[in-house]
Amino acid sequence: MKIEEFKKERERLNKIIMKHSDTVTKRFFALDTQTYQAGALSAKQKELMGLVSSIVLRCDDCILYHLIRSKEEGVTDSELIETADIALIVGGSITIPHLRRMFDKWTELKNMEEK
Amino acid sequence: MKIEEFKKERERLNKIIMKHSDTVTKRFFALDTQTYQAGALSAKQKELMGLVSSIVLRCDDCILYHLIRSKEEGVTDSELIETADIALIVGGSITIPHLRRMFDKWTELKNMEEK
Amino acid sequence: MKIEEFKKERERLNKIIMKHSDTVTKRFFALDTQTYQAGALSAKQKELMGLVSSIVLRCDDCILYHLIRSKEEGVTDSELIETADIALIVGGSITIPHLRRMFDKWTELKNMEEK
Amino acid sequence: MKIEEFKKERERLNKIIMKHSDTVTKRFFALDTQTYQAGALSAKQKELMGLVSSIVLRCDDCILYHLIRSKEEGVTDSELIETADIALIVGGSITIPHLRRMFDKWTELKNMEEK
Amino acid sequence: MKIEEFKKERERLNKIIMKHSDTVTKRFFALDTQTYQAGALSAKQKELMGLVSSIVLRCDDCILYHLIRSKEEGVTDSELIETADIALIVGGSITIPHLRRMFDKWTELKNMEEK
Amino acid sequence: MKIEEFKKERERLNKIIMKHSDTVTKRFFALDTQTYQAGALSAKQKELMGLVSSIVLRCDDCILYHLIRSKEEGVTDSELIETADIALIVGGSITIPHLRRMFDKWTELKNMEEK
Repeated sequence: MKIEEFKKERERLNKIIMKHSDTVTKRFFALDTQTYQAGALSAKQKELMGLVSSIVLRCDDCILYHLIRSKEEGVTDSELIETADIALIVGGSITIPHLRRMFDKWTELKNMEEK
Repeated sequence: MKIEEFKKERERLNKIIMKHSDTVTKRFFALDTQTYQAGALSAKQKELMGLVSSIVLRCDDCILYHLIRSKEEGVTDSELIETADIALIVGGSITIPHLRRMFDKWTELKNMEEK
Repeated sequence: MKIEEFKKERERLNKIIMKHSDTVTKRFFALDTQTYQAGALSAKQKELMGLVSSIVLRCDDCILYHLIRSKEEGVTDSELIETADIALIVGGSITIPHLRRMFDKWTELKNMEEK
Repeated sequence: MKIEEFKKERERLNKIIMKHSDTVTKRFFALDTQTYQAGALSAKQKELMGLVSSIVLRCDDCILYHLIRSKEEGVTDSELIETADIALIVGGSITIPHLRRMFDKWTELKNMEEK
Repeated sequence: MKIEEFKKERERLNKIIMKHSDTVTKRFFALDTQTYQAGALSAKQKELMGLVSSIVLRCDDCILYHLIRSKEEGVTDSELIETADIALIVGGSITIPHLRRMFDKWTELKNMEEK
Repeated sequence: MKIEEFKKERERLNKIIMKHSDTVTKRFFALDTQTYQAGALSAKQKELMGLVSSIVLRCDDCILYHLIRSKEEGVTDSELIETADIALIVGGSITIPHLRRMFDKWTELKNMEEK
């Protein structure tokens, strides 16, 4: 799925989940947003920490979300590769299929930027 | 994948797995069925427990299977939302992509029912 | 660790975590409590759902916490055994060491009650 | 995805990951290859061990990779079924969707061989 | 915990779990035993497959159980090290604390044998 | 276990694992060390990324190792709390027992420093 499609599908599903949610869900979503705001750690550092967690837990949608946010926060190729290395060493070869797809999406994100 | 396609694909694959199975597999499948039958806990309660386990373990196919069964057992919107809340709090934001897809399928199940 | 010691240690550590917490942590803990309150599903049903999730995710402390709460909500032997069956079938033999320890603590909880 | 497409996509993504890799990644990939070479345990035994690990960790791409390699090493139907049994018993019903897809691919691999 | 204590504690807990079990539990335990019996794959191969699964799923009790059984089946140092390598590469550095404890127990098992 | 005992036990077990290791193990351990060295990301950032991964994967020994290293790299209370928040939101309440123990050890580390 292309990144633009991913974003649209995510938006469509977010509307559905919000229609089926009570205060617990809504408060959790608010907390989730609050967690990644700049504080003692910068927004960029936090996105990379969300990313590394998503890779070791092997959640493609979570990886793509934090990858898009990392690009917005100005993460460089080298910073992404070192993040991938930590995930690979901590989580093992089981993370490789997710890393492959992540770098494919990274390439797509960089191509979108160049246009 | 639409629910009807999911059911057909599941049936097709079940035939293949049964062709490649010995007594261990067959007995495990029998035990799996037996586990969700009404006892001290009702069938509905058990399906919701199968569902919450499938969400925290993040298995989309297992979620969809228990979701369909939950609908058959008369689970309501509120009961499903509270089940989702427990999974979300226990399992964290990593479960969100699965919850999004679950509520999308729930909407489809409710639309099927109305027809 | 005996249940009384577990409760004291949990209280001691909760004080330490609360000293090292900001609004995200505090709000998460409040949400956690809110999630298990009776609603469309009873408090007992919710505790058993927290329990089954804790077993398949294999977290002994979480299991013991929900086990104590389940006892308080009046869960019976048969209800606990059927909950354990779902966890065992969903999560496999890897859950067995946790189930062993859970039933050991269940016995301790029942002995405490008799006194 | 058919096996031939899987292989092509894997090759395409491997090129992308190799373009975004430093010595840690490259050395890890080399170690990964070295690990499955015949030693005290045969290459076939090692592939089945990689396979059983991939099933309990529920990684479809990893399963397919080790399945293809297992076929090349001469694994029989019975050996594969007994491997699946261990994964099913250790990992529980949560592995079933992955086992279904594995035996579907196994059938495809056997059909490719017959041609 | 020394191996002899582990065995006694396991026996004690098994009695408790058997007192709190219905046909699902009992049949699962029977299946679990059946799964590791020699068939197309030898008992030794199966124990190593149970072991590698236990390491990547990071269950110390399961590791120790299969380690004891592996010793009984005549597994050598080299075979165990190659099994550990597969687990380490598949599962990553997160498995290292479990591997450390496994080799400590392996040393204890070898010392017991020598006496 | 006190931090000094943890370090001694870790050293003792590392000797045992090194006695039972071949080139795969040794190279993996070298890669593991290399991964956390300062590069595009600082050593401090990398330790916090190792820490957040260890919390969501729920490995107490890994958490303690990266916590000690984080202290050495000058991580502050606020940075640690924000790291814990990310882990808690991503990984859910199942991480709480590990976070409790982490902040207990953090207090111990700070007390050691003051002396």
